[in-house]
Amino acid sequence: MNPTPTVQEDTPARTALPQNTLHAAIVDPQMDSMRLLSETAMKFPDALSFSSGAPYDGTHDIANLSVHIDRYVKHLRDQGVPEQRITRMLFQYGPVNGFIQGEVAKMLQHDEDIDVPAEAIMITHGFQEATLVALRGLFASPDDVLLSVSPAYVGIRGAARMLDIPVKGIVEGPNGLEPEAVAAAARAVRAEGKRPVALYLVPDFSNPSGTVVPLEARQRLLDVAAEEGLKILEDNPYGLFARDGEKMPTLKSLDTRGDVLYLGSFAKSAFPGARLGYLVADQIVESEDGGRRTLAQELSKAKAMFSVGSSSLSQAAIGGILVENDYDLRSATRELAAVYQERLAVTLDALAAHFPPERYAEHQVRWNVPRGGFFLTVEVGFAADLAAMERSARDFGVSWAPMSMFYIDGGGDRELRLGFSNLAPDAIREGIARLVRFIESEARS
Amino acid sequence: MNPTPTVQEDTPARTALPQNTLHAAIVDPQMDSMRLLSETAMKFPDALSFSSGAPYDGTHDIANLSVHIDRYVKHLRDQGVPEQRITRMLFQYGPVNGFIQGEVAKMLQHDEDIDVPAEAIMITHGFQEATLVALRGLFASPDDVLLSVSPAYVGIRGAARMLDIPVKGIVEGPNGLEPEAVAAAARAVRAEGKRPVALYLVPDFSNPSGTVVPLEARQRLLDVAAEEGLKILEDNPYGLFARDGEKMPTLKSLDTRGDVLYLGSFAKSAFPGARLGYLVADQIVESEDGGRRTLAQELSKAKAMFSVGSSSLSQAAIGGILVENDYDLRSATRELAAVYQERLAVTLDALAAHFPPERYAEHQVRWNVPRGGFFLTVEVGFAADLAAMERSARDFGVSWAPMSMFYIDGGGDRELRLGFSNLAPDAIREGIARLVRFIESEARS
Repeated sequence: MNPTPTVQEDTPARTALPQNTLHAAIVDPQMDSMRLLSETAMKFPDALSFSSGAPYDGTHDIANLSVHIDRYVKHLRDQGVPEQRITRMLFQYGPVNGFIQGEVAKMLQHDEDIDVPAEAIMITHGFQEATLVALRGLFASPDDVLLSVSPAYVGIRGAARMLDIPVKGIVEGPNGLEPEAVAAAARAVRAEGKRPVALYLVPDFSNPSGTVVPLEARQRLLDVAAEEGLKILEDNPYGLFARDGEKMPTLKSLDTRGDVLYLGSFAKSAFPGARLGYLVADQIVESEDGGRRTLAQELSKAKAMFSVGSSSLSQAAIGGILVENDYDLRSATRELAAVYQERLAVTLDALAAHFPPERYAEHQVRWNVPRGGFFLTVEVGFAADLAAMERSARDFGVSWAPMSMFYIDGGGDRELRLGFSNLAPDAIREGIARLVRFIESEARS
Repeated sequence: MNPTPTVQEDTPARTALPQNTLHAAIVDPQMDSMRLLSETAMKFPDALSFSSGAPYDGTHDIANLSVHIDRYVKHLRDQGVPEQRITRMLFQYGPVNGFIQGEVAKMLQHDEDIDVPAEAIMITHGFQEATLVALRGLFASPDDVLLSVSPAYVGIRGAARMLDIPVKGIVEGPNGLEPEAVAAAARAVRAEGKRPVALYLVPDFSNPSGTVVPLEARQRLLDVAAEEGLKILEDNPYGLFARDGEKMPTLKSLDTRGDVLYLGSFAKSAFPGARLGYLVADQIVESEDGGRRTLAQELSKAKAMFSVGSSSLSQAAIGGILVENDYDLRSATRELAAVYQERLAVTLDALAAHFPPERYAEHQVRWNVPRGGFFLTVEVGFAADLAAMERSARDFGVSWAPMSMFYIDGGGDRELRLGFSNLAPDAIREGIARLVRFIESEARS
């Protein structure tokens, strides 16, 4: 008997895999928008780029990496940690939730008035993993829905898509997310027979819009969360860079009921390359055997299965930066905050100089006036899509981000995002001049 | 009109969260087995521990961290990379798939005879994230089932559970996973109306069993994969430590059809603290617009949404180690391999000395005889559960891992795993003597 031929002779040795056999989130073009944006921007290296939100990187020095790590090692030695244990912390498998939670807790108390024990903190591979862990823990059923401010950072929708969690966008106003809109969205989700589980927002200088939620609305958001049974996922990468005297209390610092999970990042307060962030989850979880642990401890089961612990090198470097600065990143980043404030002011001034009020209508141009953050948004009279961005970069030498990529349920087709955080003032002025020429050209065509 | 009171007066300020409102995988006790094992072991710090699979850490020196990073920076300078670009690589956001893929490709070619371009490699936060990314990409429907060798490292089941992917275990034999058992399992899954998508295994010195799949079975596994339409997820943390002359070809190096995804880790070949691994996925993905990219490039959309890029510090440290060793980790780890080989031999000798053949039956004790790896398994005549492990650690001063925690669909109730990788020979001898006293005591009771 002949054996059945199992691979046909004419089958090519290596068959290409059709993209549509992969998970839907991989195939979804919106999941790919950041890559397409960055690839388009890279095609025109001479264009001035407002397209990214990369932090200012003018002050970094390679030699400092070892300085930071050595500083953390000295800190451990000063505390009497035995040499062999320090070596193990750096080289061996370590605790899933990390080893610098104590240092982060001190920083949170100083900088954000957030008073939580180290056990309520999980060190993660950046904001993105903190979000993934929080979502995985809180979302248990296919009927569980995430509410999110819209427009929003693409990472929130992406993390949810990777876990097959549906997201309902709530379009924000000029003062950010409105509490009554959140309550209405929660009721609408419930009316569809689904369960609104958590709400994502950036109360301070939201990406991409730059909005800030006023104090009264923060209090009301917390009440809405309690009324609607929502947990709040508070993301705060830019709050550190508020003008002096304008710092708003975080939702977490106002949270008396334990409804807020706080998502932290060292990408802007230290440096992005470390890929280090953290999750604050001080809620008490009660297990059936009567055990009581923090939610951060409970979620270590998810963290373990996503990536085990976080990089010891990154933890030591960030730990060193925290120790060097006496857990006061707010003071440590004052100069950096001034850099961002100047860049924001230069961007706004340049826009105002080119578009005095009498020209608004002519070009259908409007922009918002954030008081901080890395971004502002410009409304224009034409479709500001990726094709338009490519024309802008190729023919006018300036790139930006289409706002539509940040909207969750559609929108923003005639808006663009300007990220000014990593452009020097002269480049900003020249970039805005180029952008104006592009906008005028689009208006003519 | 009075406003409706939204939070009742007698509600405690911070209500505890019931554990069973969290995702099922967080609540599943098996997901927690590693933590319980490690907490139980830590309760008895004086016990000799065969419970972990941590690599030998006797040779690490804190000062080397900077040496490795500096070596990688020098390598970049030698290649003419501009200083500003090097600084950005270390401090700024970097490419999602990493920046040391070229160095890893050279190592794979040298050490494993795996010949893939840098574009087919994604640098990840360790094996665990490589697995998560691969699973997320390949598993598109709730009917998609993962086949896995059983018993298996808990991380594979955990990663699948986090993504709600069902796992079907295939119990291995003394020579590891048997190809016909894989074919039968694939057909059984299909008979239930589901789709077997991929197969996970460790062909070389599997964790926990120490088995090695023979060459002929490797060829046949590749044929079965082609026949059944399975992708193979090959995990190879221990293959580097084969005895001289006993190295087996990896499935990936034998794969002519593009059916194997290779999951790599630097935890054992360099050090675990870096949390660095990689995914080799050289399959070509065809998108509807005719685009052709490697699967590793396509999966960067998942990696971006799990954690963005990998730690620049970890990449530089591991990159430095690769450069220092001329991409030849096999030679670089020869001394380390000899350490593990000695520890395996000492463990086997001690077992044989205490349990000569005539005592096998009396105590119902059997063990396997791996030729490498970090583990072996011992069958005993009593339930080797966590309670037994606690008695062993408390009363006899020796800890180990219950095998049942590694079985996917139950099994291994009377087996224990001995991990000898991080115990010195004298400690192993004393540990086995204690284990023998424990086994004798259990037999009496």
